[in-house]
Amino acid sequence: MTPFASSSPQLYAVIMAGGQGTRFWPRSRRRRPKQLLNILGAQTMIEQTVARISPLIPPERIVVVAGEAHRDQLLAALSHLPVENFLFEPVGRNTAACVTWAALWLRRRAPEAVMAVLPADHVMRDEAEFRQILATAAAVAQTANRLVTIGIQPTHPETGYGYIRVGADRLQVEGRDVFRVERFVEKPSRDKAEQFVAERRYLWNSGMFIWRVDSILHEIQRYLPQLASELQPVGTAQAADQQAAIIADVYPRLEATSIDVGVMERAQDVWVVPGSFGWSDVGSWRAISELLPADSQGNVVVGAHRGLETSDCLIYSPNKLVATIGLANLVVIETDDVLLICPKTRDQDVRKLVELLEREGREEVL
Amino acid sequence: MTPFASSSPQLYAVIMAGGQGTRFWPRSRRRRPKQLLNILGAQTMIEQTVARISPLIPPERIVVVAGEAHRDQLLAALSHLPVENFLFEPVGRNTAACVTWAALWLRRRAPEAVMAVLPADHVMRDEAEFRQILATAAAVAQTANRLVTIGIQPTHPETGYGYIRVGADRLQVEGRDVFRVERFVEKPSRDKAEQFVAERRYLWNSGMFIWRVDSILHEIQRYLPQLASELQPVGTAQAADQQAAIIADVYPRLEATSIDVGVMERAQDVWVVPGSFGWSDVGSWRAISELLPADSQGNVVVGAHRGLETSDCLIYSPNKLVATIGLANLVVIETDDVLLICPKTRDQDVRKLVELLEREGREEVL
Repeated sequence: MTPFASSSPQLYAVIMAGGQGTRFWPRSRRRRPKQLLNILGAQTMIEQTVARISPLIPPERIVVVAGEAHRDQLLAALSHLPVENFLFEPVGRNTAACVTWAALWLRRRAPEAVMAVLPADHVMRDEAEFRQILATAAAVAQTANRLVTIGIQPTHPETGYGYIRVGADRLQVEGRDVFRVERFVEKPSRDKAEQFVAERRYLWNSGMFIWRVDSILHEIQRYLPQLASELQPVGTAQAADQQAAIIADVYPRLEATSIDVGVMERAQDVWVVPGSFGWSDVGSWRAISELLPADSQGNVVVGAHRGLETSDCLIYSPNKLVATIGLANLVVIETDDVLLICPKTRDQDVRKLVELLEREGREEVL
Repeated sequence: MTPFASSSPQLYAVIMAGGQGTRFWPRSRRRRPKQLLNILGAQTMIEQTVARISPLIPPERIVVVAGEAHRDQLLAALSHLPVENFLFEPVGRNTAACVTWAALWLRRRAPEAVMAVLPADHVMRDEAEFRQILATAAAVAQTANRLVTIGIQPTHPETGYGYIRVGADRLQVEGRDVFRVERFVEKPSRDKAEQFVAERRYLWNSGMFIWRVDSILHEIQRYLPQLASELQPVGTAQAADQQAAIIADVYPRLEATSIDVGVMERAQDVWVVPGSFGWSDVGSWRAISELLPADSQGNVVVGAHRGLETSDCLIYSPNKLVATIGLANLVVIETDDVLLICPKTRDQDVRKLVELLEREGREEVL
């Protein structure tokens, strides 16, 4: 028996759903970011995320941290979770603030808990294997002060992910190798990525973290003392409305730091569980096109498409026939009020385009 | 005074409006072909065509030959023309049939008339100059048996037009050189086109013809005797409904031949008036993009567009923001139910795409 079988009371999930997902514009909008889109499959990504962990973690132990603006949509989409398990941020302040608030909230309920911090908008092909890895990570994290992350075995020299270099220290937990993290590496150049994959000592940084509530609060206290002290009153306030008032007051002035940079890259006792479960952070339109089935010409089509000499395109147009001639590797996204066209190689620049529209005050399409 | 000043009673216009314009799909549809689109400017192309000649030819001398399917739209668009001046074909049978019917119709009304056969869907930048050329051509055509065409001075080695090689015979009419046609040449290769332009003995074939009613009927009798004899009864039938019955009976079995191939390329007494008046047959999306004003990046936009590194595109999207990254020389046409994307260099293949949809029975988008 693993210490984190499905009946285990100590494992909580904290789903981080605060992202804006501007790279999925024009499908993602301020009012409906990526995690609230059914971009892969019938459910929204956050519903898929909750469903994926449900065999391991029951609803009452799933916590969602998200933007106040998405309150109604989230409560509707995840109506089987307790209302009090939603922590709505008045403004986004990156993941360190989000993790700190969730950890303080959990400490009052289950001070011995292990919390798994999971992005709301990733996909995994082999969900059972993912849950096994998550349970192993939780077992590793039961030792005080350990911070644990899940590292993905690279399948190709991806330049869109950060990497983790594994160290020499190794544990055997539940029949799996678990490594001490030597260091985190930013998104590499193509050359670097190829070198990493060849060296076999690097894993992709999945952005999933597992730790005891007291471990992470201890590390936040150490590396982000100002954040810890600003949010401290939330941990002691009794009434829910009192907590909400503190958050409304404190949150806007918190430093926006990621938990990766703020804590993980500086902490000493960091471990990684390697996993291979068909993971993707679904970070761009190109990633989508690699996750959905393609036709014989390599085109991924949602909607109707007829083409002459058209190959390897991603075409999303649920309401309109898309007719193309002589195109390759293009992304075409048609929504009610916006049409986006760009080469797959430029899909990261969708963000720049959104920034341009922001500067121009085109609120109606943001 | 020219013999065809604006008060001249003998000059009639026959506007050929039977085309389908599939190259402007998805804007052009079976129910609304190119000549019924306001593709350049506020008016439809056929309204522009009528307005352009109106200073020279009054409404009662303008005849429109078109498809039965477009009756209501044409009568509404051209409500200032007499209803009896519309000749509606039950099926399209190319231009020789259309010209023959119109000539027979005219012979009953004005046997001495000169008729100018004009496509409904061309544009001319200098309309006054065009009318001058047309009047000159009508003067040339007053001599019995002459068939006259307007040839456009080439501005570049266009491969999308047919050419006319001018002969040595020359007339001086109203201060203009008018040449005997040596021969008509099909759309040339790029090399040929360059040679034609360099030789300076070639003009573009505009598809506009001017002749006396008796001249063209004589030539049709000679070169297309079967067509002439099949349509002969229309010329003698008295009542309008009697004529309509004959057309309904005869038209479907007529040979579909162009007046160019059927008569012009074979006739002996053919003359061309050279003209330079900013003419285009508006034959493709690329042609449209060359006729409309472009922004600083060379993009021609109808609707709203925001782009990063986007140049020389034609973007038609009246109802939706088009956002692009890293595109060049692309045609993007957005309608209520279809989105077309193709490189400008492939715009002639829109026809193939429409044929594909026809084979698939996609009636709703044709």
